[in-house]
Amino acid sequence: MGRIFKERTSVDEALKRFLEKISPLRKTEEISLEFCTGRVLAESVVSGRNVPHYRRAAMDGYAVRASDTLGASPANPVLLQLSDRVEEGSAFWVHTGTAMPESSDAVVVVEDTVTTGDIVEVKAQVYPNRNVAQVGEDIKKSDLIFEAGHFLRPCDAAVLASMGIDRVKVFQKPVVAVIPTGDELVSREKIVDVPPPGMVLETNGLMTDLYVEKWGGTSRYMGIVPDNPESIKKAVEANLDADMILLSGGTSVGIRDHAPEVVASLGELLVHGIAVSPGKPTALGIVDNIPVVCLPGYPVAGLVALYFFVRPGIRRLASVQNPPELVLKRRLVAKISSKIGYVNFIRVVFEGDRVRPLTGAKAGALSSVAKADGFVLVPENVEGYEEGDEVDVFLIE
Amino acid sequence: MGRIFKERTSVDEALKRFLEKISPLRKTEEISLEFCTGRVLAESVVSGRNVPHYRRAAMDGYAVRASDTLGASPANPVLLQLSDRVEEGSAFWVHTGTAMPESSDAVVVVEDTVTTGDIVEVKAQVYPNRNVAQVGEDIKKSDLIFEAGHFLRPCDAAVLASMGIDRVKVFQKPVVAVIPTGDELVSREKIVDVPPPGMVLETNGLMTDLYVEKWGGTSRYMGIVPDNPESIKKAVEANLDADMILLSGGTSVGIRDHAPEVVASLGELLVHGIAVSPGKPTALGIVDNIPVVCLPGYPVAGLVALYFFVRPGIRRLASVQNPPELVLKRRLVAKISSKIGYVNFIRVVFEGDRVRPLTGAKAGALSSVAKADGFVLVPENVEGYEEGDEVDVFLIE
Repeated sequence: MGRIFKERTSVDEALKRFLEKISPLRKTEEISLEFCTGRVLAESVVSGRNVPHYRRAAMDGYAVRASDTLGASPANPVLLQLSDRVEEGSAFWVHTGTAMPESSDAVVVVEDTVTTGDIVEVKAQVYPNRNVAQVGEDIKKSDLIFEAGHFLRPCDAAVLASMGIDRVKVFQKPVVAVIPTGDELVSREKIVDVPPPGMVLETNGLMTDLYVEKWGGTSRYMGIVPDNPESIKKAVEANLDADMILLSGGTSVGIRDHAPEVVASLGELLVHGIAVSPGKPTALGIVDNIPVVCLPGYPVAGLVALYFFVRPGIRRLASVQNPPELVLKRRLVAKISSKIGYVNFIRVVFEGDRVRPLTGAKAGALSSVAKADGFVLVPENVEGYEEGDEVDVFLIE
Repeated sequence: MGRIFKERTSVDEALKRFLEKISPLRKTEEISLEFCTGRVLAESVVSGRNVPHYRRAAMDGYAVRASDTLGASPANPVLLQLSDRVEEGSAFWVHTGTAMPESSDAVVVVEDTVTTGDIVEVKAQVYPNRNVAQVGEDIKKSDLIFEAGHFLRPCDAAVLASMGIDRVKVFQKPVVAVIPTGDELVSREKIVDVPPPGMVLETNGLMTDLYVEKWGGTSRYMGIVPDNPESIKKAVEANLDADMILLSGGTSVGIRDHAPEVVASLGELLVHGIAVSPGKPTALGIVDNIPVVCLPGYPVAGLVALYFFVRPGIRRLASVQNPPELVLKRRLVAKISSKIGYVNFIRVVFEGDRVRPLTGAKAGALSSVAKADGFVLVPENVEGYEEGDEVDVFLIE
């Protein structure tokens, strides 16, 4: 009646096999800069303009001919005539950004001047180009400003806008089908009361849906599919127009666990059984070139699979470079015991400047994640950590 | 003609004075769990249910009476009768999540059994409650699950859903008015060609608008306001229904820099002139209890003010706890020279496992931010760092 995992692939190896099969999407769309945060440029951007496009004052003060200020100092100020243009012996008021008058070549900052009537007393010498921004100083026409694949941040939108660009070509977001499976599941929309014994509310799909959106995918959150191979097969086939398919539940080795075998029957099952705890029943496969992740039904195990495989998978599809992992170094308030041969995902809470492992938290206890601020990963070959050990803490986002 | 900064407040002191004047918003709204990521709970959540709400199998296998398995081992298996209920000597097939039959008190995992016809050979002894999830094991009815002020993540949505909750009361997002000021500014929407000399495209407002949204505010991105006190005053007064007002540009001490004086005339100017480079002309104030930030017009200085003051201000309004600062420890490829008396904001790019400071990048050069992966802050009392020094790198998001 039961089958047992024949293999147990390491996390790194499983991820490698999975990512090898995923190609970045090439579908693009053009969007307005107002919506570009978090999107990925599909083409490089070469500036069609100089920025600034005119020679401008970089400070508030007086545009002058630098040669007129030779030797000026507080003790020996140079007197210039306030004027509406610049020629020998004259000064022209400029604020930051003003176009420099033609024959001027420097700005004396206002702090180094005293103006009485139309006489400007200059108390500091300036060299040519002092406090002047040259044409193209920030960006030169024909400069390559962004390469294709650049991840757009709000400050990048301003750079693009400064070049007169209003719309950019970006990669489309990957469409990720989220398919909850399980005879025991009840839709939250269809029930107001506590479900009968043996039945539970569908919640993993909701969590998955929200992480997909958070990580830059477009989620297609499907209805519940019963635990039989034919229904699961139909649900997968109906979503082969998506860019990734996530089957939640039915990944273990029980009689109702059909997701991995369906993947195997429709395409290629790359990995089933991963050396991570919780999360071991996770399966990874490919159907019609579409990556498929079978997420364990236990919510914490599902969360682990989301972090370890779905997030990098979405990033690969979306051409998002993996950002450097940001971790906090924290000392443990209590020891962690860990299962050798598995990467152990340990939930932790902050406690002052240390972290406390949530021990005794089971894979089914999603409430332990709600309590947790972050997690610590104990490598496969480490038995655990002692109280006081410094560990890398990842935040749960 | 020019005024000089009388004071130069430290970043910490400026932020302290600003945050002291900001009260978290108390306006709430009810939203569906589908949209709760990144929102903040306005009330604590007490569970109205037990989760699980029934005693369930935690593994696939056979529900039994633990006492029936006494002494079972591979060498001495106990034989039980496969049945559709559990009484002395019988076993009932369960998969993970099945409601436990009434008189059963443990599950023998499938791996420890061999079933032939209706005889189940049990090869391991189990203790009472083994592989059984008790009612309320994850969440007990009346348990406090989240406190008011909890920042909601996708995994939290699943926890809420598991308690039968579909909608949550959250704090409203702060409405942040973004007001670009400057006679030299041209709206990107109104121009297709390069602006005339002395005129520039409005881009700081766009950057500000996108950061406000990214940091959890609702941006109200206004049209360009000319550089005169009366117009700026009107624009501020027209936005006193917002929760925060950002004036971009006109913060320095030139004749066209009116934003801080307008704030002073309408309310209280808390700080003008901050010991950060770039970003010195930043001003902070309060009008009608509404926090106002005057952002320098130089784009990098504006970015610094956004990071240092607007982000914490929005978080305070939105009741978002400041998350722990995530930094990368990296060694410098080249030295950094820094101005004593100022926190220096140094843009850096990754270069292998080190970072290179973008030296010579001026405050006006937003393109240097586009190139930058992150920034390093050099404290006020530090002259700089040497090549090879390890520094904290903040990512530019």
